[in-house]
Formats: sequence, C-alpha cells, structure tokens
Amino acid sequence: MNMTAAAKRLVDSGTLRSFSVSLLQAGGFAPDHAAQTADLLVWANLRGADSHGVLRIPRYVEMVELGIINPKPELRFISEFGATSVLDADRAPGAPAMIMAAEKAMALAPVHGIGWCSARNITHAGAVGYFAHQVTRAGLIGIVMTASKPLMIYAGSRAEGVSTNPIAIAAPTGNSERPILLDMSTAAVALGKIMAARDAGKSIPVGWGVDADGAETTDPKQVKAVLPMAGPKGSGLSLMIEILSSLLVANPIISASLNGAEDAPFNGLVMAIDPRAFGEKEAFIKAVDQLAEDIKGLPPAQENGDVYLPGERGFAELEKRASEGIPLAAGTLSRLVELAAKQSIMVPESLGSLR
Amino acid sequence: MNMTAAAKRLVDSGTLRSFSVSLLQAGGFAPDHAAQTADLLVWANLRGADSHGVLRIPRYVEMVELGIINPKPELRFISEFGATSVLDADRAPGAPAMIMAAEKAMALAPVHGIGWCSARNITHAGAVGYFAHQVTRAGLIGIVMTASKPLMIYAGSRAEGVSTNPIAIAAPTGNSERPILLDMSTAAVALGKIMAARDAGKSIPVGWGVDADGAETTDPKQVKAVLPMAGPKGSGLSLMIEILSSLLVANPIISASLNGAEDAPFNGLVMAIDPRAFGEKEAFIKAVDQLAEDIKGLPPAQENGDVYLPGERGFAELEKRASEGIPLAAGTLSRLVELAAKQSIMVPESLGSLR
Repeated sequence: MNMTAAAKRLVDSGTLRSFSVSLLQAGGFAPDHAAQTADLLVWANLRGADSHGVLRIPRYVEMVELGIINPKPELRFISEFGATSVLDADRAPGAPAMIMAAEKAMALAPVHGIGWCSARNITHAGAVGYFAHQVTRAGLIGIVMTASKPLMIYAGSRAEGVSTNPIAIAAPTGNSERPILLDMSTAAVALGKIMAARDAGKSIPVGWGVDADGAETTDPKQVKAVLPMAGPKGSGLSLMIEILSSLLVANPIISASLNGAEDAPFNGLVMAIDPRAFGEKEAFIKAVDQLAEDIKGLPPAQENGDVYLPGERGFAELEKRASEGIPLAAGTLSRLVELAAKQSIMVPESLGSLR
Repeated sequence: MNMTAAAKRLVDSGTLRSFSVSLLQAGGFAPDHAAQTADLLVWANLRGADSHGVLRIPRYVEMVELGIINPKPELRFISEFGATSVLDADRAPGAPAMIMAAEKAMALAPVHGIGWCSARNITHAGAVGYFAHQVTRAGLIGIVMTASKPLMIYAGSRAEGVSTNPIAIAAPTGNSERPILLDMSTAAVALGKIMAARDAGKSIPVGWGVDADGAETTDPKQVKAVLPMAGPKGSGLSLMIEILSSLLVANPIISASLNGAEDAPFNGLVMAIDPRAFGEKEAFIKAVDQLAEDIKGLPPAQENGDVYLPGERGFAELEKRASEGIPLAAGTLSRLVELAAKQSIMVPESLGSLR
C-alpha cells in the first residue's frame, strides 16, 4: 500500500498546534491558556492518544459558552503548609491549572524532599501523563491524579458511582524526553478511546462499557458508562483518588454529583519527589536506566515481539508523528473545521485540503 | 447443615495469636517482633485474607534458618530530609520494620503536611493494609507499598519481570476501626490466594497464573508465575512501585534478581498525609463518611445484593471471626502443628483437638 499523506489525513503537528490555539482563543481562552492547552492536546495526538487530543476542542469551547470553563480565571494559592500547597483554579482550563500545580510541587520538592500541590476547581485536565513528564524534566519523580464526576460503574453496583480517574507516575531517566511514564485510567479503557472509536466509526470490544440499561455493548454510540479496570480494584482505586484529590481540599465531586449537583468542577493533584532527599541523584537515574534495560531484555511473549516500558510506545509514536505528521480521524477533522467556520477563523490550507 | 466448630476448624483469634507468637519466638524472632508479626498475620486471618495469615509462619521460620530474615536486626534511620526519612531495616521481619516506618511517617506528617518513610532491606511485609490502617488511627491518610522480587509476568513478556507489589490506600472515617481501606496487589490475584487454594486443595480460575512452560494453569501446585492485573496496567504499576520503593533508596530488587542475585532483601514505603494541612480535619472526616454513605446507597448489581466500600467486607469478616473464631484450612493447621512438634513447643489444646 502506498497511501498518500492526504488519504491518511496526515497533519503537521506545528500546524495542528497553531490551529488549535486559534480555535481555543476564538472560543474565549486567554492566549497563554490556549497555548498551554493546545500543547497538551497535540502532545496526546503525537503519542497516539488521539482520545485525549484535539478532538476535545469543540467540547472545550462549548464548556466556555456554558460557563463550565472560566476563560478568565483567577488562579491563586489558598494555602501552604510544609510540603503541601492548595491551588484554587477558579474553573480554569485543565492545562494551565495543572501546570501551575506541577510547578508548585516541583518548587516544594527540593526544599522538603516531596512537594504536593492540590489543584481544586479545575476543569477537564486531559492526558495527566503530560504533567508527570514535566516533573521528570527537573529530575524529579512525578505522580499526578485527577478526579471527575461519576461516569464509571462502581463494581458491585449497576450505576455510575465513580469516575475513570486517571493516575500517572513518571520517573526520570538519562534521557529527559524519555521518562518511564505510566499513565493509566482506572477504567477498563479510557472513555476517550470510546470517543475515538465513535469518531473512527469502529465498534468496541465487550468489557469496555454498558448501555443505558446496564448491558454491555460494542456500539460506542450506545455507551452510557464504562466498566472499571479489574473490577473492584479499578473502582476502589478511583474512589481513593477522589478522596485524595477532592475530599482533602473540601471539594467533593462524587457526593455532589450523586446528590444532584450538575457540572461540579474537578480536582487534581501533583506530587514531586526529589531523589536527592534519599540519596545520590546520579545513582538513582543510573538505576532507572539499568531497570529499563533489564525489562527490555526480558524474553518477549511472541517471537520477534518486543517488550515495552510504560510510556515507551507513546514516545516512539511521538517521534514518528513529529516527523511524518499526525493521522487525524475524519470525524475529528470535520468537527474542527466546522468550529472554525462557526468562529469565522481561517483553516490552515494543509488541513482544509484533507477533507 | 449444622457444622460444629471442630468440623469447621474454628480457632479463637487470641489462641491463634499466642500460638503464633510462640512459634515465631521458638523460630528465633525477638519477643516484640514475634508479637508484631503475629498481630499482623492474625489480622489478615480475621479479615478473611487467609493467604496473608498464619500459613506464612513455617516459611518465616525457615527464612530465619536460611539467614534471609535477620532475627536480631539493628533497625536505624539512615537519613532524614524535610518530610522524608529512610529506615534501614537490616533484614528485619516485615511487620516491625513497616510499623517503624509507619510511625515515622505519622510523626513527620503533622509537621510537614505529608510524611514519607522508606524502609529498605526489609523482608516479606504481609498484608500492607494493616500498616495503612495504623496510619488512619491517627486521623491521617495512609499510603503503603512494598516491592519484592520477580514472580509476576511482565505484560508483553513470557517471563517474570516484576513482583506482585501491593499498594494500600486508607482514609480515616468517623469510626477508627472502619477506615476505607483499599489493599490490592498488582497481580490478577494475590500469590497468597494461590497458596491458600493449594492448602485448601482447590483449583484456581484461568487467568491467575502460568506454569513453568508459560501456559495458563488451574492447578495451584503448578503455578510458577502469576499474571498482572489488567495486563500492562498491573505490570506497569508494579514497576513504578519498584522505582518508588527500591530505586529511590538504592536497593534495586528487580535488576538485582534479573542479574542473578538471590534473596535480595525487599523494600517498602509508608506515606502519611495530614488532612489538617489542607483544611479542617472534622470536615474532611465528615466528607469521607458522606462519600461512604453515597457509595453504599448506589443500586446493587444484583437484586438483594449489597454495594461494598474498599475493605468493608474484610472488616465485617473481622467482626464475625473475632466472635465466632477463625476457620483454619486443614493444611495450614497441619503445618503449624508439625512446626510446633519440631520446635518442641506446646500446641494449645483447642487447636490440637481440631486435627
């Protein structure tokens, strides 16, 4: 097969980033918040996590219109105690809020060994691995989690009792662009993967989600709630993330939602851990690199297969897509172009020609 | 059916605890370490987690004989920086080492908002939920993880590349004996459950473990390695626990084992988080109780079913077994009595009559 770039809808990442900035700014985002959000979304697209990429933009713009996202937020630290800090994000877009929390945690860690910044009243945060990766750029270990409203079945119930709350844990290696990066949702599958399947017109496997009647479905359009990862482990971990992210900062989401509140703002937290508090940083980095080498050296499950570290495939995809372009789903492209038309902004020529 | 206590081998928890103390002390454990270990093991039995209970005693005694567990360890804090501390446990039994780490984390948390104590050179730690529960008794959130040697398949490989490293997260509620307590291994199932099935003479479901040829097996005696929870999520999380617990304190287990080291000592860590660093403690506890009530109020999956909080079934079982007695598997009882005979110590009359 010799598919052309157009047939695969390959989009240059720089073009997609600047188009995204334009769409978000036209949608009301402040310029710096639009840039931070676009960078996060395109990072996800570059890594092959299209479910967390630019397909979210139309909804983000709608959320500004609905008053869910505050496009002119006043972000401020409302408390600080020892190694901990609380940021009130005033319903800011997720990216700038979580970046600010990450920077605070990164500033606290060298002083206290650990830094913990809770970000309350954020909105949809996107791919939390992005923030964990930021923390590793400073030679620190990053742990990031976010909490949102019920959209996942609580194991043992037939109702959505918890969110798909993700957790990312990242460790620095000798290559700052290649941390070991675990970024997982507590669902059997990320909700965004179901959205991506819907956009790509594909069916989904059994075990991902249930329909309005609580029955498992393979039609992404019928999914009302996703199922937890490994049953009670997934819903239990999600519940603990709600306690750590939301209850600690007096902004419960699950209880609020189950008791009728609509569009309660979300919460997140970033922990940064400084290896120098525990020993020599260089020896730690070397040990991480050694562990990576040892895991890569394990015999693959399939002949001629490969064994991957957490996040490794995403970084390999990032390198590939950064040079070749990002293959954009037809539905995603259509919706972005429609939004641009509605906003009366220009569609980059290379993008318009792909439709 | 009207089974008698003898037919069910019901053992009084106090009797089992003191018998366990005797066995451990005769096996070389210091009196206080024997008491702490017995309390941890019987706590697991009381909660129905027999896989982490007294069935471990014969192996613990053997580990002393083999020089793996140091029965006369010198536990000492080797570093402290801000909110963090490192305890070198000198191959102590797991319980006293992790209790000492928990106490240090609990002492650091009120000062810094968070406390983190790494325990290096520990041995098998058992049910990590026990230590997380201890942390909640002080009104703090507890997070505990431990790292051990490769015995779980790394997703994508056909070899054991990681351990079943567990993580426990516990939040205090209005009832100090009933925290919300998530205690999960990163395996599809805890290795101890396979040991318990072996002792009970039962087969295991497909998906729990593989035999020496890498094929899935239902015979617990044939299991050579367990499979990870949710594939790459389970083995990825386990790998990050190794980085956090072992690499940070310069005591890598996976790399050491994969490169030929035998019986490398294990590591663990305890984090304590003080709700008072973030807001009012009473409001936090109230919010946890509210969340618990809301989750309990979800519609059950099965009619007349019930929805459980993390750890809830274990605490209900604890109350039942504390009053009715602990049903001990025939194999477990036999091995404990055999050990007592070998050590020339008395078997409590109520236990000997159950054989």
